[in-house]
Amino acid sequence: MISSCWSRNAVHPEPPKSLLSPLVVPEKTLMAPGPSNSSTRVLNAMKNQILGHLHPEICEMMDEIKAGLQYVFQTKNRLTLAISASGHGGMEACLGNILEKGETVLISKCGIWGERAANMATRIGAHVEFLETEPGVAFTLDQLELAVRKHRPTAVFVVHAESSTGMKQPLQGVGEIVHRYGGLLIVDTVASLGGEPFYADAWGVDVVYTGSQKVLGASPGITPVTFSPAAEKKIFERRTQVPVYYWDMTILGDYWSCFDKPTRVYHHTISATLVYGLREALAQLAEEGLRNTWARHAAAAERLEKKLSALGLEFFIPNPENRLKTIVSIKIPDGVDWKVVVDHAMKKYRMEIGGGLGPTVGKIFRIGVMGVNASADHVDRLFGALDEGLRYARRSKL
Amino acid sequence: MISSCWSRNAVHPEPPKSLLSPLVVPEKTLMAPGPSNSSTRVLNAMKNQILGHLHPEICEMMDEIKAGLQYVFQTKNRLTLAISASGHGGMEACLGNILEKGETVLISKCGIWGERAANMATRIGAHVEFLETEPGVAFTLDQLELAVRKHRPTAVFVVHAESSTGMKQPLQGVGEIVHRYGGLLIVDTVASLGGEPFYADAWGVDVVYTGSQKVLGASPGITPVTFSPAAEKKIFERRTQVPVYYWDMTILGDYWSCFDKPTRVYHHTISATLVYGLREALAQLAEEGLRNTWARHAAAAERLEKKLSALGLEFFIPNPENRLKTIVSIKIPDGVDWKVVVDHAMKKYRMEIGGGLGPTVGKIFRIGVMGVNASADHVDRLFGALDEGLRYARRSKL
Repeated sequence: MISSCWSRNAVHPEPPKSLLSPLVVPEKTLMAPGPSNSSTRVLNAMKNQILGHLHPEICEMMDEIKAGLQYVFQTKNRLTLAISASGHGGMEACLGNILEKGETVLISKCGIWGERAANMATRIGAHVEFLETEPGVAFTLDQLELAVRKHRPTAVFVVHAESSTGMKQPLQGVGEIVHRYGGLLIVDTVASLGGEPFYADAWGVDVVYTGSQKVLGASPGITPVTFSPAAEKKIFERRTQVPVYYWDMTILGDYWSCFDKPTRVYHHTISATLVYGLREALAQLAEEGLRNTWARHAAAAERLEKKLSALGLEFFIPNPENRLKTIVSIKIPDGVDWKVVVDHAMKKYRMEIGGGLGPTVGKIFRIGVMGVNASADHVDRLFGALDEGLRYARRSKL
Repeated sequence: MISSCWSRNAVHPEPPKSLLSPLVVPEKTLMAPGPSNSSTRVLNAMKNQILGHLHPEICEMMDEIKAGLQYVFQTKNRLTLAISASGHGGMEACLGNILEKGETVLISKCGIWGERAANMATRIGAHVEFLETEPGVAFTLDQLELAVRKHRPTAVFVVHAESSTGMKQPLQGVGEIVHRYGGLLIVDTVASLGGEPFYADAWGVDVVYTGSQKVLGASPGITPVTFSPAAEKKIFERRTQVPVYYWDMTILGDYWSCFDKPTRVYHHTISATLVYGLREALAQLAEEGLRNTWARHAAAAERLEKKLSALGLEFFIPNPENRLKTIVSIKIPDGVDWKVVVDHAMKKYRMEIGGGLGPTVGKIFRIGVMGVNASADHVDRLFGALDEGLRYARRSKL
């Protein structure tokens, strides 16, 4: 009964041989600033059978995720949801919803993420101004006010956790200054949220996004975002449509039931798998409690800092108050080939230690202390691997 | 040692109670046109621990996925990869890479997907022309040539499997006409690829995308795409940048190692979980063989069609040659409340049957016969649930 038009034809290309061998996934300890490990609970959730994008169980999970995100963002924003894309998609969605062609965005730049945001803003047709500091150095409120007064930006883009250097930008007072000059504050918390205190509402942050795969410990590919009432107003009062359907909040918000309407509206097919994982990651955070999670990250980072100091290693971030608890960055000691250290840890312990990124390549090690890996045991194992790797690198130079 | 600025403050909002109950995911049989079920092998793969976005194992899997996609698309295109977004993101990425502001796109419209594509193209600033037919009716090559000759579009957008009606648009000869007038052919195969014969190269299709969650049986959120050498040339010779960083093929292609360069370049953090799932889905397809998969889908759909005919039900698509093997659409019999039938199947059998979408709401049932569900057993169970539901709906009207 098979129609004859194709059954006689050979197919080209042929089935690839590389797909005929079994999948092998080694279990690694991910202590670079990249994705962190997921808990067994999160991983087990993701093997559940797929459900439809509007099934009642998925809608309920989306509501639970929204509530969990309001908790972790510390906001009452109704427009709180997760975008079906990785963190870069979240960054571009936040910029793309707020900015219109010809508007000005002021971008703080002290690592690679400000440049990435500028790349995206330029594609939107926005005018980009920078508030630049040395890598590893935070801007001050005075510097900010000077720049905001000069450029009167529609939005100011700030990275809370500059993962390329390990620096934390203090945010208290930033929102107030931005708002005083009529702007909106967009903050990237990809590498901090959950591991560093953060209060979207109290700090006057209008737009925030974070990574699912860092402190939260879910899989990448689903990016939490939140928009304040002022940001929502800007989006609905745009002169032009949001340039991208896929993350247009005026319609994506209807899928996530953010606008108090009676029914959800189909927008795209959300990944049930990633929903399960993020729901469970947020459930674990809700069970532990935000303050406990913050305290656990602080304790783990401080334990690591103490050990690194005792070994005579130097921190990359000069001001201790600006050192992230989620990413600890140290200078590579003289005469050490960083790649040998990193490779040794991976080869012998399946332990990932990060090298530099952007302006810090070849200059620092970056150690992620995030999610399930923010424990004394993980810190001790990481430190052991690093210490051994440093000795090994020095020996292999002789 | 915890800094005092936040440890004394209470957090608002509090942890949501809804997250303190366990995750419950019912196992359903998904035979609507939405996502289909995943195999146990695919589901088990997705519970593997996360890996970094540039780890050698992930890079190898990305290469394997690329080879698997070249096989299932039947193409030798080097620019073949999977976008980290759902199918709607894939649609927008394909349009956004090819079209520039002011260029014309001719969109075939006979259901909802053409309108969705027009929505996206308009946001890009492209000029949209339609080639419109009645829902369920394919355009002819003559109609196409007339429209292409008149509008001289930069690109023609065609939906191979119009899932809102269950119609298959024949594609032989389409590429030739589009090329003759200097255009590029973009085809949506979201609901057909793997279940219907498709030959990207032999049919002269320049840009194709599909859904991971339909015939392929992976999770949604990762969307296969391929671009022909002519499409690649157009992208690299654009007057303006691709408007979206997240799916700009000139840089995303470097992450997927498509351009024969020595190293991959970080572009975004791919979801390891979705990579595992898609890799295993493609491995199962490679093991079965494309022709066998096509034949299995055809046999399952024909078995269902026979049973539906025997029950006196009418097909929505008038021309049998244009009936998809992946989505069987039948008219709702007079006097039957479709919602009662669909709800009955879900409630009693956890079996999902689709209602209409867009122009077909309230007019048809849509039955997905895709991936692992394209089997005689699934078809028989689906038919049993449908038959029983129809009787139940007629009884409950009395």
